[in-house]
Amino acid sequence: MKVVIVGGVAGGMSAATRLRRLSETAEIIVLERGDHVSFANCGLPYYVGGVIPKRESLLLQTPESLAARFRLDVRVRSEAITLDPESRTVVVRELDSGREYLESFDELVLSTGASAIVPPLPGADRALVLRDVADVDRMSAAVSEVGSAVVVGAGFIGVEMAENLVRRGISTTVVERGPQVLAPLDTEMAAPVAAELREHGIRLELGAELVRIGADTATLADRRVVPADLVIMAIGVRPESALARGAGLDIGSAGGVVVDDRLRTSAPHVYAVGDVVEKTDALSGEPMPVPLANAANRQGRLVADVIAGLPAVDPPASGTAILGVFGLTAAMTGWSEKRLRAAGRRFRALHSHPLAHAGYYPGARGISLKLLVDPDTDEILGAQAVGADGVDKRIDVLATAMAGGITASRLMDLELAYAPQFGSAKDPVNMLGYMADNLRTGVLRTAQWSEVDDAIVAGTCLLDVRSPEEYAEGSIPGAVNIPLDELRDRAAEIPAGPVLVFCRVGQRGNSATRLLTQLGHDAVNLDGGYLTWCAATAAPHP
Amino acid sequence: MKVVIVGGVAGGMSAATRLRRLSETAEIIVLERGDHVSFANCGLPYYVGGVIPKRESLLLQTPESLAARFRLDVRVRSEAITLDPESRTVVVRELDSGREYLESFDELVLSTGASAIVPPLPGADRALVLRDVADVDRMSAAVSEVGSAVVVGAGFIGVEMAENLVRRGISTTVVERGPQVLAPLDTEMAAPVAAELREHGIRLELGAELVRIGADTATLADRRVVPADLVIMAIGVRPESALARGAGLDIGSAGGVVVDDRLRTSAPHVYAVGDVVEKTDALSGEPMPVPLANAANRQGRLVADVIAGLPAVDPPASGTAILGVFGLTAAMTGWSEKRLRAAGRRFRALHSHPLAHAGYYPGARGISLKLLVDPDTDEILGAQAVGADGVDKRIDVLATAMAGGITASRLMDLELAYAPQFGSAKDPVNMLGYMADNLRTGVLRTAQWSEVDDAIVAGTCLLDVRSPEEYAEGSIPGAVNIPLDELRDRAAEIPAGPVLVFCRVGQRGNSATRLLTQLGHDAVNLDGGYLTWCAATAAPHP
Repeated sequence: MKVVIVGGVAGGMSAATRLRRLSETAEIIVLERGDHVSFANCGLPYYVGGVIPKRESLLLQTPESLAARFRLDVRVRSEAITLDPESRTVVVRELDSGREYLESFDELVLSTGASAIVPPLPGADRALVLRDVADVDRMSAAVSEVGSAVVVGAGFIGVEMAENLVRRGISTTVVERGPQVLAPLDTEMAAPVAAELREHGIRLELGAELVRIGADTATLADRRVVPADLVIMAIGVRPESALARGAGLDIGSAGGVVVDDRLRTSAPHVYAVGDVVEKTDALSGEPMPVPLANAANRQGRLVADVIAGLPAVDPPASGTAILGVFGLTAAMTGWSEKRLRAAGRRFRALHSHPLAHAGYYPGARGISLKLLVDPDTDEILGAQAVGADGVDKRIDVLATAMAGGITASRLMDLELAYAPQFGSAKDPVNMLGYMADNLRTGVLRTAQWSEVDDAIVAGTCLLDVRSPEEYAEGSIPGAVNIPLDELRDRAAEIPAGPVLVFCRVGQRGNSATRLLTQLGHDAVNLDGGYLTWCAATAAPHP
Repeated sequence: MKVVIVGGVAGGMSAATRLRRLSETAEIIVLERGDHVSFANCGLPYYVGGVIPKRESLLLQTPESLAARFRLDVRVRSEAITLDPESRTVVVRELDSGREYLESFDELVLSTGASAIVPPLPGADRALVLRDVADVDRMSAAVSEVGSAVVVGAGFIGVEMAENLVRRGISTTVVERGPQVLAPLDTEMAAPVAAELREHGIRLELGAELVRIGADTATLADRRVVPADLVIMAIGVRPESALARGAGLDIGSAGGVVVDDRLRTSAPHVYAVGDVVEKTDALSGEPMPVPLANAANRQGRLVADVIAGLPAVDPPASGTAILGVFGLTAAMTGWSEKRLRAAGRRFRALHSHPLAHAGYYPGARGISLKLLVDPDTDEILGAQAVGADGVDKRIDVLATAMAGGITASRLMDLELAYAPQFGSAKDPVNMLGYMADNLRTGVLRTAQWSEVDDAIVAGTCLLDVRSPEEYAEGSIPGAVNIPLDELRDRAAEIPAGPVLVFCRVGQRGNSATRLLTQLGHDAVNLDGGYLTWCAATAAPHP
């Protein structure tokens, strides 16, 4: 069996090494257009920032090491320029010599990845992108000589880039067309990341568009000119599907190669993995690109199993993603509220602001959590978290719960490891379960931050049940203050009609709402409390 | 409705506050024998050690704060001395005045917890235990005046105590009857914790028994005398079931109160929660005590739901537990290998030694992981982890996977949050899935560290596929060294007959075993590699 793998990084190299372990006799050829195979894509921004000091740390394998260990025929600077599934051949161009040759195969794996999108702006030829080792070399050379930079795009990569430019002492502006950073997150969850960026001196231009790149500036659509010795494009990636298109393979609406759940393309004997394909979304069943390293690695191993004749099925994807930026971590899994809204799906949102570990143990810092739940089935639809500590753990647990079909209310039953350094006797994830259970059973009704304005207009009584000291430092305009501990005695002060109760994070509000409800009031609790409202409306935080 | 709750800490106070939120009209009386309610049990050792500097941090609520917020009638220093389910009354003794009175109830919740076991040794009246605030006050006073201490018992509490005594500069000996620290863990997983304790100057006396406590010494069964200005008993707890026994409630074989899945005891209108009850083991379905704070909190809320008439069911328990000690974390969920062996259950063990995050990102430190799998169903039976970093996350993910019925092989499909600070493109949990899949499908066969001696006796070829440098620093006695990268060319050197392959952690061994198997050898890979073998046999680590 002769297998040709086009692309020698995450997916391609996982496929090649797994295939060798499964078949000592297979002939395995890896064609890689770039200079390097198996490099650490996700580490590139940190090498630019100096966090990863040595370039060789990025280079996990070489053609020589792969030949010695796995008897792989790895050919770098070798581009597959045409693919003919009919005759099972690829034309390969050696980039250095310009020589072209025909290579035959029994099975072929496309792992060509995705390339950074560079819009056709005036001056865009000066913009850098960061996808491979050649890019990182260019960028590393550049950053040591510049004083200012513009990063276009405030997605995960754009934010990582901005952080690392600041680490190098570069005055950095991030220009983002959308109204927030980290578009996959919901507004109120992304807001702390924006604040963190600004706190570290990054200028954020949200709702702004770059229209021209000059010699050492960049011009925005509103004609403002931003210093930009360096311009980095991070507005997104698109599947590198040119080879697949040329071969007549089916391409999806998002531009990725269409594969089935055994990673077979529309042509027999041709498979595709990683950023170049469209995966099946776990919630909608629709195809979607998931340009994430873990998905690529997983699919690489899987396609080797398929080729070797093992039973293996590619599961649908939830797209768990994480970002560390300065002292903050933001992560998510599944769908966001805005995506659910756009798809017209019914959902229930829950916000909480627990401490990452027991408050009585030193160093406990806050996390903001959001859970999205199907109100009919209690299914978890998505989760988001942002905070200094313990964010990755909670999102991993929630992603695992989703994979295991654990419903939102049952999160309360999870037995999570508790000692005061690591969590709480009622872990933040358990608490989400308690909250979901209260909503599911009707024990509690909540309102979202986005409903506050309407409530004010409708003349709803806004009841702040925090302490007078907290109230004095700022509250929702028009709110009256009756501290929770006085509420039983002072309930007569509350007018008839609907009451919107809130506290700092929602817990005292829960007790107050339960109390008022039992006293006959039409009370709802503001989900996530004052903190979520502040994050969403960008009022100063307490 | 009048509800009496006996015991005002984790389970009891969760019950009381939840019940108030569900019913504003219920009369709720909490009887607490001690001086304090709702204190931070799990923080006590850290207050002794000075990590938690302020005593008031331990006191989460007071009778006054609970009256103001939840209208609870909290009576401290009030002991329920007899319970009559028939007449629905308790006799309460006020410990200060000695006065006794009868209190009636409609429903009663027993949350009396567990007490530390103190064996009847000569001099044992001098030994301290650590269960409540009075204990911690005694101990805090003592530690400022002593130079030496003996902790009896190397379980979770004993190890936490020893760590905190060392923090106070006290020369500490831990005396443990069993052959290892942390009996719930398997030998090879507990070994790094023992090493960490010794590295911090703690003397470990394993397989040792205390027979006498003198004025400032303690005597072991082998007549050795250990300095012991202070003696702390941490050999375990037993359910505080005297009140329940006196009332004629059913008591289980482990001494805990028997409850059904709605936390009802054998007497109508009497419920029990927390350390005093026996929970249902998730794997065996048998009753077992689970003296853990999270279980108690969970049951407290649940019993309030039951009393309020909400549908609520107490799920079976897996007993997830965690320990932080100096720079190390150890955690587990489900069953250990030794427990599976003792129960005669079939299992498959997997060991791995991944880095907590991507190796190319600075600060990556190792974790040792162990997974126990049902070889017939692929069900996860248990997991253990020990390491400097990322241990809590992996055990929480594995506990969640178990709760969700995710089988061992499917761990490879989990979409866990990956950026190089937080994990790897193939997360350690995914890797366990890959390993389990290889075993399930027969792609790989492994041997356990405990089978090495038999293999040597049987004349099996022990093949070390690490580098010559690693081999030179130490290997399994009798092993020959052929580095993986030379194995294809030198395979002829390997004698006919069975081959036991190993490397440092098992990954190169996997590749080598696959290669040899395909070349016709009868090869198996040493699970967990040289590192697991070293940990288990206490050879010096590489």
